[in-house]
Amino acid sequence: MTDLQAILDDIHAELSPRIGEGKVADYIPELAKIDPNQFGMAIATVNGDLYSVGDAAIPFSIQSISKVFMLTLALGKVGESLWTRVGREPSGTAFNSIVQLEREEGIPRNPFINAGAIAISDVVLAGHAPREAIGELLRFVRYVADDETITIDDKVARSETQTGYRNLALANFMRAYGNLDHPVEHVLGVYFHQCALSMSCQQLAKAGLYLAARGSNPITGHSVVSPKRARRINALMLTCGHYDGSGDFAYHVGLPGKSGVGGGIMAVAPGIGSIAVWSPGLNKVGNSQLGAVALEMLAARTGWSVFGD
Amino acid sequence: MTDLQAILDDIHAELSPRIGEGKVADYIPELAKIDPNQFGMAIATVNGDLYSVGDAAIPFSIQSISKVFMLTLALGKVGESLWTRVGREPSGTAFNSIVQLEREEGIPRNPFINAGAIAISDVVLAGHAPREAIGELLRFVRYVADDETITIDDKVARSETQTGYRNLALANFMRAYGNLDHPVEHVLGVYFHQCALSMSCQQLAKAGLYLAARGSNPITGHSVVSPKRARRINALMLTCGHYDGSGDFAYHVGLPGKSGVGGGIMAVAPGIGSIAVWSPGLNKVGNSQLGAVALEMLAARTGWSVFGD
Amino acid sequence: MTDLQAILDDIHAELSPRIGEGKVADYIPELAKIDPNQFGMAIATVNGDLYSVGDAAIPFSIQSISKVFMLTLALGKVGESLWTRVGREPSGTAFNSIVQLEREEGIPRNPFINAGAIAISDVVLAGHAPREAIGELLRFVRYVADDETITIDDKVARSETQTGYRNLALANFMRAYGNLDHPVEHVLGVYFHQCALSMSCQQLAKAGLYLAARGSNPITGHSVVSPKRARRINALMLTCGHYDGSGDFAYHVGLPGKSGVGGGIMAVAPGIGSIAVWSPGLNKVGNSQLGAVALEMLAARTGWSVFGD
Amino acid sequence: MTDLQAILDDIHAELSPRIGEGKVADYIPELAKIDPNQFGMAIATVNGDLYSVGDAAIPFSIQSISKVFMLTLALGKVGESLWTRVGREPSGTAFNSIVQLEREEGIPRNPFINAGAIAISDVVLAGHAPREAIGELLRFVRYVADDETITIDDKVARSETQTGYRNLALANFMRAYGNLDHPVEHVLGVYFHQCALSMSCQQLAKAGLYLAARGSNPITGHSVVSPKRARRINALMLTCGHYDGSGDFAYHVGLPGKSGVGGGIMAVAPGIGSIAVWSPGLNKVGNSQLGAVALEMLAARTGWSVFGD
Repeated sequence: MTDLQAILDDIHAELSPRIGEGKVADYIPELAKIDPNQFGMAIATVNGDLYSVGDAAIPFSIQSISKVFMLTLALGKVGESLWTRVGREPSGTAFNSIVQLEREEGIPRNPFINAGAIAISDVVLAGHAPREAIGELLRFVRYVADDETITIDDKVARSETQTGYRNLALANFMRAYGNLDHPVEHVLGVYFHQCALSMSCQQLAKAGLYLAARGSNPITGHSVVSPKRARRINALMLTCGHYDGSGDFAYHVGLPGKSGVGGGIMAVAPGIGSIAVWSPGLNKVGNSQLGAVALEMLAARTGWSVFGD
Repeated sequence: MTDLQAILDDIHAELSPRIGEGKVADYIPELAKIDPNQFGMAIATVNGDLYSVGDAAIPFSIQSISKVFMLTLALGKVGESLWTRVGREPSGTAFNSIVQLEREEGIPRNPFINAGAIAISDVVLAGHAPREAIGELLRFVRYVADDETITIDDKVARSETQTGYRNLALANFMRAYGNLDHPVEHVLGVYFHQCALSMSCQQLAKAGLYLAARGSNPITGHSVVSPKRARRINALMLTCGHYDGSGDFAYHVGLPGKSGVGGGIMAVAPGIGSIAVWSPGLNKVGNSQLGAVALEMLAARTGWSVFGD
Repeated sequence: MTDLQAILDDIHAELSPRIGEGKVADYIPELAKIDPNQFGMAIATVNGDLYSVGDAAIPFSIQSISKVFMLTLALGKVGESLWTRVGREPSGTAFNSIVQLEREEGIPRNPFINAGAIAISDVVLAGHAPREAIGELLRFVRYVADDETITIDDKVARSETQTGYRNLALANFMRAYGNLDHPVEHVLGVYFHQCALSMSCQQLAKAGLYLAARGSNPITGHSVVSPKRARRINALMLTCGHYDGSGDFAYHVGLPGKSGVGGGIMAVAPGIGSIAVWSPGLNKVGNSQLGAVALEMLAARTGWSVFGD
Repeated sequence: MTDLQAILDDIHAELSPRIGEGKVADYIPELAKIDPNQFGMAIATVNGDLYSVGDAAIPFSIQSISKVFMLTLALGKVGESLWTRVGREPSGTAFNSIVQLEREEGIPRNPFINAGAIAISDVVLAGHAPREAIGELLRFVRYVADDETITIDDKVARSETQTGYRNLALANFMRAYGNLDHPVEHVLGVYFHQCALSMSCQQLAKAGLYLAARGSNPITGHSVVSPKRARRINALMLTCGHYDGSGDFAYHVGLPGKSGVGGGIMAVAPGIGSIAVWSPGLNKVGNSQLGAVALEMLAARTGWSVFGD
C-alpha cells in the first residue's frame, strides 16, 4: 500500500496557504463562532491502521454527517419499509428546501436532506422518549467508533433549537401530510441533538469503518449491518450525500461521502478504509471547501475512486 | 472469475416468466411498434471475453444511451470548459422537464437529461454540418465497439423528428437563453440521429469497455479517453444516468449505468467489464423494468457493486 | 331599485334542490361537523336596507373572510408600509402553498392567502399581547357590523390550533426569513382566533358595508377607512380574494369578494351594498360552491358587476 | 362631466420631467430602436368624444394589447368552449414563463400571457391559412376602431419571428401536450403578426370603446359582443392584464387594462370610456412605467375606479 501518512502530510502542506478559505456557517450562532483556520484529516483502514494530520484530534460539530448514523439505526429498526417514509433520489434543490416536500406530498426525497433526516428521527423515536432516542444514537456512535468519549455538545443543540425555524417549518409541513408520528418538538429534539454530535476526524474515520468493511468494524469485530446494507448506504451517500453538490463531489472525488455544515466530510473507500476531513469554511452549496479539495487530492494520489483507478 | 455464462443463463431463466413486463415507450411512433417480449444481455470483460444470453444479438434503438458517447466526444473537443454549458448534478425532475431550465436560466442540470444532451449536440456540431457531426458520432461508436456494422435507424430518426415537440421546446428555450450556437433544426438533427443509433447488447457491451478499462479498449488497444476522464464519465452515469431513478439504480445495482427509452441499459463495472441489457418494457420513471432487475441480480451474484463486495 | 327581496327569494328557490352540493372542509375537525344542508344570503345596502333569505341569521365560522378585517386593521396601524411585509399579487397556487414563500424569500404574495394573513397577524400584534390583539379585532368587527353580539368560537379556534401543522410550517418558514417579529405561537394564536370568528350572513353583510360606501358605514355614520383605502381593499379582494379561483370569480360574478372555508363569501358592490352568502359545501379550489353560484345569479339579475351593466 | 381635456393636459405637464423613465424592451431588436422620450394619451368616451394629449397620434407597436382583440375573436368563434384550451386565472409568474405550462400539462393559465395568446391564435386559425387569420384580425381591429388606416408593421413581425425562441419553446411545448391543432410555424405566424399591430393612442382608445359600452361601439353603432361578454373580457383584463403586476395595477388604478411591451396600455372605464396611454419605458414587470402612473393619476382625478368613487 502507498504511504498514506506521506500523502496526508503532502496534502496538508499543499493546502496550508489556503486554510481559512470558504465561509463558516452562520445561521447557527454557536457554529458561527468557530475559528475558520483549522484543518484536520484522518484515515482509518480496514487493516486497523489510523493515519492523521493537522487538527485531526480536535472535536467539531459533525452536523449532517450524523444523518448516516441515524439512517443506519433507522434501517436497523424498520428495514426496507423505511422507504415508504422517505425517498432515495437526489433532490435537485438546497438542503433545507421545502418546495419538493409540497410537490411530493410530505415525502422527503432522501434521508440526507434536512426533511429526510427529520423523518428518520421520527422513525428512531418509535417507542422512546426523545432523551432515550438521543441516548441510543450516542451509544451507537460510540460503539461504531469504539470510543466512549464521544459526546453531544449541548450548547450547539440549544443554539439550533433556538434558531431552527426552517426545520420547524419542514417538520410541521411533514406532520401536516401525516409523515410524522410524534410531536414535532420531540422529533426536532432528537434531530437537533444528532446534529450536535461532537467528534474529531480520528473518531469519525473510525466510526465510518463499518461502511468500508462489509458492514463490520474490522478492528473490534463488531457487526453493524449486513454487507448488502453497507453497500446501499454507500450508494445513498454517493448520490445524495452532498446536497445539491453531490454530482460534483462524485465527479471530482469519486467516493461515497457525507458532509456537514460544521465543515466535516466523512468518506468511504469500500474495502480500503474510511476518511474524515474537517475545515470549517464552506463553499456555496454548503460543503467544506478545503475538505472537498483534500479528498480530491487523496483520491487522485491513491486511486481509491470507486469509478476506476 | 465466477462463471459469467452460467450467471447470465440463470438470470435469463429466472426472468423468463416476466419477459414482457413494463410499458413500451409510446411517444415515438416507431418505438411503440417494438415487440415487448424480448430480452437480451451481454457482458464484455476487460480480458476480452464476451458472454451473452437471449436476444443479445438483435439491434435495438439505444436512445439515451448514446448520450454517453456524445458526452465523450464533446469532452474530447472542448475539455472541461464543457461545464459552462451544462451542469453535473442530478435533476430531481423527469428526463424531459423544462422547469429546471427556466429556474437555472438555460443551463441544463447534466448531460444525460434531454436538455443536456441537446446542449452537448450543439458543442459537437461546432465547425460541422449536421450530417458530418452525425457521421463523426457513428464513426466513434463503431471505433469504440470495434464493429463497422453499427448503423443509425433512419425511420426512428424521422419518427422522432416528426413528434419531437418537447425537444423542440427545450432547444428553443436554451436558444432563448443563448445556450445554443447553432440553428435549432441543426442541433436537433444531430440529437435525433444519435438517439436512433441501433445496436445489439453485444455491440453495446463492447462499446462501453473503454469506461471499464481506464479509458482504453483493452482488446483493440484503442485509447479513447484518459483514465481520469473515464472515471468522471462513470461518476456522471452513476449520479445522473437514470433520470429521476438514478438514486434507486445506485441503491439496487451499484454500478454506473445509462438507460434509454428503447429499453436498453449499459452499465460499467470498473476494472472488470461492461454490461448491456435490453428489454423494451419500461418502469414508471422510463427505465427498462427487467433490465434493471437483471442488473441487480448480476451485481448481487458477482459482487461487482462499486460500493463494496 | 329592483326588488332585492324578490331576487333573493328567487335565487333561494332555484337553488333549493342543490343545497348540500360540494364538500364540507374536513381538515379542521370542528368544521367537518357542520350540516351541509344550509344556505343563507343577505344584502345590506348603502341606503340602510337589509334583505335576507334562508339561514341568513345562523352564525357560521367566517374563516378567511376575517382576513379582510385584519387587513383593514393592519393598514390602519402601519399604512402603506405594510407592503414591505406582504405582496399584492395573485398567487397562482393553492391557499396554503409554501412553494411561493421559498421562491420569494418569505414574503407572501398577498394578504388573503394563509401566509399573508399570518404576516398581517404579526403586524396587528405589535405592542400587544395575543389576547389583546384578538380583543381588538373582535371590537373592530362588532364596530363595523354595529353588532355587539358577534363572538369568536373557541372550540373552532382550539380545533385549528390542534391541527394547524401547515400554518405552523408557514409561520416558522416566514420567521426563518425574518418576516415575523413575534413568537410563532403568539402570531398563530391571533391567526387561529380570527379564523374562528362566528357571524351570520346578516352580520357579515353589515360588516362589509364600509367597503361599499366609501369607507364609512352609512347607517351608523362610523368612519372606518378613507375612500381610497376602501377602493384598494376592494381591488385586492377582486384580484386575490378567492385563492386560485379569483379569476374565475371575477369572470362569473364581477364583484370584489372574499371567501372562507366555512362556506361563506362576502362580496361588495361599490356604491350599492354589501352581500354575504353561506353554504358549507366547497368546490375544488376551496370556495363555497353554491355561494358562488348564488352571487353569479345575483350579479346577473341586478347588473351590479363592476365590469359593466 | 369633469373637464377631461384639462385633466389630460395636467397629467402630461406633471409627467413631462419624467418622460424617458423606465427601460425600453430590448429583446425584440425593432422595439429596442424606439425613442424612449415619447408620451401620449387619449380618451374615447361612450358619448363619442375623443380627448388626447402628447404623442397620441403616433402609431406604436401595441404588442400584447392585441391579445384582447384576439380573445374577442376567439370567443366569437368557439364561445365558452374556449376555456378547455386556456384558463382564466392570474399566473403568478412572468409573462413568458414555461414552468406553469409543465405543471398544468400544456394549458396556459390565461389568454393574456404569451402561452395563452398562442393557444388563442391556434383557435383563430381554425379553417384558415395564417395569412387569412391575420387578415381577419386586421379587419376586426379596423372595424372596432372604425379606422381603415391601421396596419401591421412587417419589420416588427419579422424581428419577432427571428428572435422568438422563447415563444417557439412555448408553442412546441403546448403542441407536445396536444394543445395546438396547427403547425407551430403557422400559429406563431399569426401570433407574431398580431403583436406587430401598429396603432396610435387615439386609435386604440376608440378600438376599446366596445368594452366600455356594453359590447357595442356607441359611435358607429357596431355591435361586437354581448354585454355579458364585454363584462367578462373586462374581468379577465383586470385580473390578468398586466402579467405579474396585475394586482398592483388594480390596486393603484382600479380599471381593467392590458399592457404591451411596446409601452402601451389600454384601459376601460365601464359605462364611461376607453383610455389608451403610451410611453416606451417599462417597469420591472414589463409594463409601461409612466403609462401606469398616468392612469393612476387619471383614475384619482376622475373617480373612475371600478372599486368605488
